[in-house]
Amino acid sequence: MTLDAVLNKIDSDLDPSLERLSDFLRIPSISTDPAFKADCQRAADWLVADLTSLGVEAEVRPTPGHPMVIGHVGDGAPHLMFYGHYDVQPVDPLDLWDRDPFDPAIEETALGKVIRARGACDDKGQLMTFIEACRAWKAVHGSWPCRITFIFEGEEESGSPSLVPFLKEHTDELSQPDMALICDTGLFDRDTPAITTMLRGLLGEEITITGPNKDLHSGLFGGPAINPIRVLTRIIAALHDDTGRITVPGFYDGVDELPEAVRAQWDRLGFNPDAFLGDVGLSRPAGEADRTALEMLWSRPTCEVNGIDGGYTGDGFKTVLPAKASAKISFRLVGTQDPQAIRDSFRAMVRDMLPPDCSVTFKDHGCSPASVMSTDDPKFEAARLALSDEWPREAAFIGGGGSIPIAGYFKEILGLPSMLIGFGLDDDQIHSPNEKYDVRSFHKGARSWARVLDALTR
Amino acid sequence: MTLDAVLNKIDSDLDPSLERLSDFLRIPSISTDPAFKADCQRAADWLVADLTSLGVEAEVRPTPGHPMVIGHVGDGAPHLMFYGHYDVQPVDPLDLWDRDPFDPAIEETALGKVIRARGACDDKGQLMTFIEACRAWKAVHGSWPCRITFIFEGEEESGSPSLVPFLKEHTDELSQPDMALICDTGLFDRDTPAITTMLRGLLGEEITITGPNKDLHSGLFGGPAINPIRVLTRIIAALHDDTGRITVPGFYDGVDELPEAVRAQWDRLGFNPDAFLGDVGLSRPAGEADRTALEMLWSRPTCEVNGIDGGYTGDGFKTVLPAKASAKISFRLVGTQDPQAIRDSFRAMVRDMLPPDCSVTFKDHGCSPASVMSTDDPKFEAARLALSDEWPREAAFIGGGGSIPIAGYFKEILGLPSMLIGFGLDDDQIHSPNEKYDVRSFHKGARSWARVLDALTR
Repeated sequence: MTLDAVLNKIDSDLDPSLERLSDFLRIPSISTDPAFKADCQRAADWLVADLTSLGVEAEVRPTPGHPMVIGHVGDGAPHLMFYGHYDVQPVDPLDLWDRDPFDPAIEETALGKVIRARGACDDKGQLMTFIEACRAWKAVHGSWPCRITFIFEGEEESGSPSLVPFLKEHTDELSQPDMALICDTGLFDRDTPAITTMLRGLLGEEITITGPNKDLHSGLFGGPAINPIRVLTRIIAALHDDTGRITVPGFYDGVDELPEAVRAQWDRLGFNPDAFLGDVGLSRPAGEADRTALEMLWSRPTCEVNGIDGGYTGDGFKTVLPAKASAKISFRLVGTQDPQAIRDSFRAMVRDMLPPDCSVTFKDHGCSPASVMSTDDPKFEAARLALSDEWPREAAFIGGGGSIPIAGYFKEILGLPSMLIGFGLDDDQIHSPNEKYDVRSFHKGARSWARVLDALTR
Repeated sequence: MTLDAVLNKIDSDLDPSLERLSDFLRIPSISTDPAFKADCQRAADWLVADLTSLGVEAEVRPTPGHPMVIGHVGDGAPHLMFYGHYDVQPVDPLDLWDRDPFDPAIEETALGKVIRARGACDDKGQLMTFIEACRAWKAVHGSWPCRITFIFEGEEESGSPSLVPFLKEHTDELSQPDMALICDTGLFDRDTPAITTMLRGLLGEEITITGPNKDLHSGLFGGPAINPIRVLTRIIAALHDDTGRITVPGFYDGVDELPEAVRAQWDRLGFNPDAFLGDVGLSRPAGEADRTALEMLWSRPTCEVNGIDGGYTGDGFKTVLPAKASAKISFRLVGTQDPQAIRDSFRAMVRDMLPPDCSVTFKDHGCSPASVMSTDDPKFEAARLALSDEWPREAAFIGGGGSIPIAGYFKEILGLPSMLIGFGLDDDQIHSPNEKYDVRSFHKGARSWARVLDALTR
């Protein structure tokens, strides 16, 4: 049976496949920081070279930001489109890393081998699981399982500003596939694979409050001069009420209660909030009162301050009364919440709270609505069974707290349904220091994709 | 008349005296940043060399931090001790400077020549007015006006941690003078000299709130995981009520209403809050409701956030839920407010507001009570008349919003009264980018000290 041959090839090819991943991880493709622009280009070039070596017609396509990688190969139904992103998160605070984030290493841990580096999981390791499955398939069969289109972007970690225009410009080419496969999500737990069918949206805002026209001495001006940090903290503190509910007017429009059937399915997953929070040093769910932790993660919206900055923040002390203060604020969105309406309402609320002599500027850091996938297409059940064959426990349809706006864009612009399968774990420390990817995730991930490709083309 | 000869010598020596100041300003003696430790030592050495050239027995005395400069010279009554500080504030944000902060230049402005550099006013330019007066006196008389002790410290901008131990260790040597002269304050306005007799105290605290044990992805953990920035902003927002009053329990103990006589004297100064605030782009006093701007500056306490930092603050956006967030907070103190009692009460209030799963650490950035000088000593009136002779308008006894804790230490530890005379202006941008000192302040400052020395030794 040729599936077994493909799986065996993946097994025997594990060491070289980890070396390939390590090469890819050495490229510091941080998309949000302009200093790494050339590295993003290098990561795109690296992917094109690897795909080309497999016979894919691949090329780098320029965008106003970091380039896209597009590849076409194979024939036969279904026509699948595989998506991943080659850009990674920034690495600060660098002093909390145990090693150079761009010098990957295989480490032994209590739970097995891991590969440690920025991007090891998110998303370089994940996207390589699909490429390695294809490499093995090609080596065994001499051909491809079906027609496959590859799309890799380099701006996922910075709000994908070029993606929508690119999809719109290339609708003829990219709307031909039947379904998109996206590898940027996780297992439900170490032994339970998952297909994510519900994802929160994301809205990013940066606000800067300006008071005096320059930094002042807090002794010479403190008292009569307004302090923008005080104004900013007052505004941020007002964004939640005492029950943890978000106070932006109209914010909860489009947030529905969970259907009983879904609630029951989630209850059966046996999610353990104590263990989930305990892993990161916490003990009590801190979101809206009277919601379960899984609701807080998958079906309730949030408002978070992702960064705040003002005045003197170096060593020692400086009695400055700063001219300005700023914060990066994001909202996770669910159901049919309208990002643009929420942005407008948030901005109006901030403007209403401004005291005399203060001004505010807003910076739009992108937005995407929540996505909810329809699982009626039999490919979902076929993939779920294929995943269940590879892992110790049966695969589940789950929600996800993170945002993968790409699924929404594929639906809206290309008319494509998406299937989200990934092998990340909660302890992968993505977006944090010491990011890693289990070698087991990488290895069984590639095997999982071989099984899914087999199931979808049988 | 020899005073005229001294004044003439100061006039004719102006250009070389500015060159000496420029040499001193080229040394980046930022005390709060450990990277500039050697430069602080260089600044101390520079002062010793200059004093030695005038015949002063001067030396660098080590401390656990940056060194002290101590000098002794002359004989006869009164025995005066002159204090200044050779350290300067940090220079960030550097991009707001129009030139290298440590490459001083004389610039022509609409209001006359200025010397522009970090420390031009605070405090290198100010302390050099006294040294230049002494230099001219020595050149004309061949001797010193009276016995003078010099003390220059290098940690004034970072809370003077070594000063109190040093004064205690050298009480025999340093308690011998009759009075201290401190040059670190300002003119009341461009034409009105001032002796500052009332100074606010200062209390510095840094608080760090920790929640999760590492930075988290705000999608994967946002909702159930507590966000330390949210906790910090909630605490800071609670430090003032809606009338601008500070809410720390017991904070106003020791804050007295201004005596009617003092209020009347301040009213006569003709302080213009619109002009004062207008200069820095503001229009309305932002302190406690129902207080005048001069009260807010001189006789009312404050609570300011001097810096706040948490999460991702670089370019772009990062959907991080940070492990911690911190703020530098200072209180300006008046009357007999007890710094230690306020520190304890502030810390208790913060601890009371902490939600589950959060911890707080506090860092003590020093404290000093307010100082109120007694003007009964006839030297005060003699100095006031001497200053009035030099400037277009009569000199006044005023309050000061800033903190010069040294006057309190001299009183407490050495039993010395202090007289605070300085020539800074509100637009000198001390602690801000583009700090400057008017050449007129420097020149008439030196002349003022010659007149004061003459008046106190006549």
